[in-house]
Amino acid sequence: MADTLKPGDRVLLSFEDESEFLVDLEKDKKLHTHLGIIDLNEVFEKGPGEIIRTSAGKKGYILIPSLIDEIMNMKRRTQIVYPKDSSFIAMMLDVKEGDRIIDTGVGSGAMCAVLARAVGSSGKVFAYEKREEFAKLAESNLTKWGLIERVTIKVRDISEGFDEKDVDALFLDVPDPWNYIDKCWEALKGGGRFATVCPTTNQVQETLKKLQELPFIRIEVWESLFRPYKPVPERLRPVDRMVAHTAYMIFATKVCRREETE
Amino acid sequence: MADTLKPGDRVLLSFEDESEFLVDLEKDKKLHTHLGIIDLNEVFEKGPGEIIRTSAGKKGYILIPSLIDEIMNMKRRTQIVYPKDSSFIAMMLDVKEGDRIIDTGVGSGAMCAVLARAVGSSGKVFAYEKREEFAKLAESNLTKWGLIERVTIKVRDISEGFDEKDVDALFLDVPDPWNYIDKCWEALKGGGRFATVCPTTNQVQETLKKLQELPFIRIEVWESLFRPYKPVPERLRPVDRMVAHTAYMIFATKVCRREETE
Amino acid sequence: MADTLKPGDRVLLSFEDESEFLVDLEKDKKLHTHLGIIDLNEVFEKGPGEIIRTSAGKKGYILIPSLIDEIMNMKRRTQIVYPKDSSFIAMMLDVKEGDRIIDTGVGSGAMCAVLARAVGSSGKVFAYEKREEFAKLAESNLTKWGLIERVTIKVRDISEGFDEKDVDALFLDVPDPWNYIDKCWEALKGGGRFATVCPTTNQVQETLKKLQELPFIRIEVWESLFRPYKPVPERLRPVDRMVAHTAYMIFATKVCRREETE
Amino acid sequence: MADTLKPGDRVLLSFEDESEFLVDLEKDKKLHTHLGIIDLNEVFEKGPGEIIRTSAGKKGYILIPSLIDEIMNMKRRTQIVYPKDSSFIAMMLDVKEGDRIIDTGVGSGAMCAVLARAVGSSGKVFAYEKREEFAKLAESNLTKWGLIERVTIKVRDISEGFDEKDVDALFLDVPDPWNYIDKCWEALKGGGRFATVCPTTNQVQETLKKLQELPFIRIEVWESLFRPYKPVPERLRPVDRMVAHTAYMIFATKVCRREETE
Repeated sequence: MADTLKPGDRVLLSFEDESEFLVDLEKDKKLHTHLGIIDLNEVFEKGPGEIIRTSAGKKGYILIPSLIDEIMNMKRRTQIVYPKDSSFIAMMLDVKEGDRIIDTGVGSGAMCAVLARAVGSSGKVFAYEKREEFAKLAESNLTKWGLIERVTIKVRDISEGFDEKDVDALFLDVPDPWNYIDKCWEALKGGGRFATVCPTTNQVQETLKKLQELPFIRIEVWESLFRPYKPVPERLRPVDRMVAHTAYMIFATKVCRREETE
Repeated sequence: MADTLKPGDRVLLSFEDESEFLVDLEKDKKLHTHLGIIDLNEVFEKGPGEIIRTSAGKKGYILIPSLIDEIMNMKRRTQIVYPKDSSFIAMMLDVKEGDRIIDTGVGSGAMCAVLARAVGSSGKVFAYEKREEFAKLAESNLTKWGLIERVTIKVRDISEGFDEKDVDALFLDVPDPWNYIDKCWEALKGGGRFATVCPTTNQVQETLKKLQELPFIRIEVWESLFRPYKPVPERLRPVDRMVAHTAYMIFATKVCRREETE
Repeated sequence: MADTLKPGDRVLLSFEDESEFLVDLEKDKKLHTHLGIIDLNEVFEKGPGEIIRTSAGKKGYILIPSLIDEIMNMKRRTQIVYPKDSSFIAMMLDVKEGDRIIDTGVGSGAMCAVLARAVGSSGKVFAYEKREEFAKLAESNLTKWGLIERVTIKVRDISEGFDEKDVDALFLDVPDPWNYIDKCWEALKGGGRFATVCPTTNQVQETLKKLQELPFIRIEVWESLFRPYKPVPERLRPVDRMVAHTAYMIFATKVCRREETE
Repeated sequence: MADTLKPGDRVLLSFEDESEFLVDLEKDKKLHTHLGIIDLNEVFEKGPGEIIRTSAGKKGYILIPSLIDEIMNMKRRTQIVYPKDSSFIAMMLDVKEGDRIIDTGVGSGAMCAVLARAVGSSGKVFAYEKREEFAKLAESNLTKWGLIERVTIKVRDISEGFDEKDVDALFLDVPDPWNYIDKCWEALKGGGRFATVCPTTNQVQETLKKLQELPFIRIEVWESLFRPYKPVPERLRPVDRMVAHTAYMIFATKVCRREETE
């Protein structure tokens, strides 16, 4: 049923003990795991959702990895924007098909991927990253995820500003957002939406100060707590421990300077 | 700069006292508000982000409403899935360009709009709603938001199942999800993703029981708390009161029955 | 059964529509309410837990108010420390029978009452408050709650320090805690516990800076979120809205200066 | 300054790497730790708050352990009520000097200690525990903490009810609270306060059903989330992970049966 898998496809093999393996499919390859050997040829004969067994008889399922699976399993060297936050940010930025968006700094590309998905094949993400190694990592990740064609990566220090004008939205992820907010304002269209993330309250304070000096309205600060439950119907309760903090999210909307409009 | 506004466009007029007006633009129309009269002809002469003044001299800004603005301001007769939840659900369902998704029950269309955005112009949302009046309301809302072409609304009781097979993901929003989960399983492709929302713990328990009887894996239950802060840099702190609860979110992935794959 | 009520006793009359009346009992007095007239003579004939009816036949119950009932219903002119926080603070300060504690600024006396309870009749709370009117209000409240004998109220600006030495614990509740922390250190015994509350992150930052300059260890910052549920067994779920923030709580333990102990 | 330490006293030795040792003082005893040897004779020469050094020169401080220190470091064989919850419960139960309280099941004695503190030397906690080994453990813990004289431990299955009548408050901590609530009602005085804790939503539902069948009013369900912050003034932010759940807390107030009072 459904899709046929072929070499080069990525699958997630999900086993009953909650082990999961993210694999690029190759012919005649065997995967050695603590659950036994997995013969990848067997995967080609089956399809997503179907059962696979290791040499030791352990039962697993063939899945197509979601973007969340990719992000949470990727090689990363930076703090990433977690899916719980990135999905909300993309929505607050109102990113939609055909939009032109700036993402900076790109880091491992997790937020960039969420934005690239949202702009669709007719949109564009201009992704600025000053560190060559991260730009390469992001490029590699976005290529693997099939999103690189929607993204233009620029290895560049943003202190000189952005090449684009009138972008629909801009996401800023740097340790000192306040130093770049004037450049962000310049790149945004009238009514364009801005977002940034800060792990500390001190950074939020500095960022707010700068936002209030510039023609931004609808300035908002949010944080989110996501709590998982043990999925046991007879003993439904939250898990014992949870993520306490990822980052504060700050949003604002660009408006025009007075002199320009009155 | 940027877009030129024309009759029929929707704008959000945002004033400094936090009053906001969502308006369908018409020539020669005047809007009477507690802040004074707004001459809409003035809006046509300006563009998004620019300043507008009421007859009483109150200053506001012309914005293009986001999907969140639309959802939070729409005429609704049902409990809606809030943006904080709907953005996370769409991400957990891994909805992307070109996907075929089932959304049921549609209600006022808030979740449907988020899904329709995510599938892009090449994707499709099959939206089931048994109550004629809600189907009409959803159609009207989705039309206003420019998303109706991606959505097929079906006025139908889902107890007989869905017309579609092998859909990429399915979102179920009814008071008794457990009664329809077998039908959802049938409609999903292998590896397809399922989500539902329940306001009460009792509903979560019943839903989990049913999910565990069927070939679903990766069953997860989440809740989210979003806390806004007062955006005052010198006195940064959360607001006094916040939303305590919207709904529990339940996720699962369809796998095949054993006999089908071994 | 149990206690007999007499003139001067305080009762809480709790009705089925959730109306509650905190009353000082008097002979031959009638209470006029939206639920009808309550004849207080009837209360004397009954006891705590028993049913009382208004002239309109509305059913209520006679209760002895808890300290929480008193605090949440008292005449107040200041922001108070809420019971969810004050009970935790008293425990973190390890307040127990016989302890000598400083409380400053006293405000309406809510935290002072919690501390006074915890020190028992053999302990003492030295309560500093610089505004005459609040000192009077606190005195009146603590008298009503039967705790005034454990409390010595001093109408005093604390910038000159405290009269007491070697107190077991100290609670500081002023807008600028950092200006008084050296005085607090002086008043505490070795190993004595310090707590303060701040509504904003900026205040927390300033307070932490000062605490780190002085010989304090075990510095901790906490916040608490208390979420009530609708007590409906068939539809168990949190309420719709909750308190998002009261104050950050900061704790520290005094240790001696190096020169004093080595 | 302050207290002089003597053999048998308990101290908490707190080191700069956050290692902490809870020690019963003995003459001529040496404590071997990963930080080097601690000569306890040195502790007697100093007092609380003063500096102590290991043989390896590591610096620590002498503290008197708080009840929280004791509870979090005690030998336990059961799930305990955490201080964040126990302090709130004691306040909601309005426990005060001289009160007579029932605590059941006692487990390791953590909640019992909090209640014993609150009733003072003139009050009493009647502590029921059916498992001999736990009763012994609780007795040992309460003795160590100097609270045993306020507590009467009874090794008893509570299905036959309690010996006491007209108690001021009752705390119930068993896996199936609903089976004992009628016995709790009988033991409480009119207006007496009841509390129980349940880890799962299913238990809360069953407990609420039973509470609603009996003459209880003011039924409330709460949960608390306590979030610690990293105490760094320049980078103030919550820690990465926190406790997600301990238990739901349920409260109710006993009122009399109708026939008894009208």
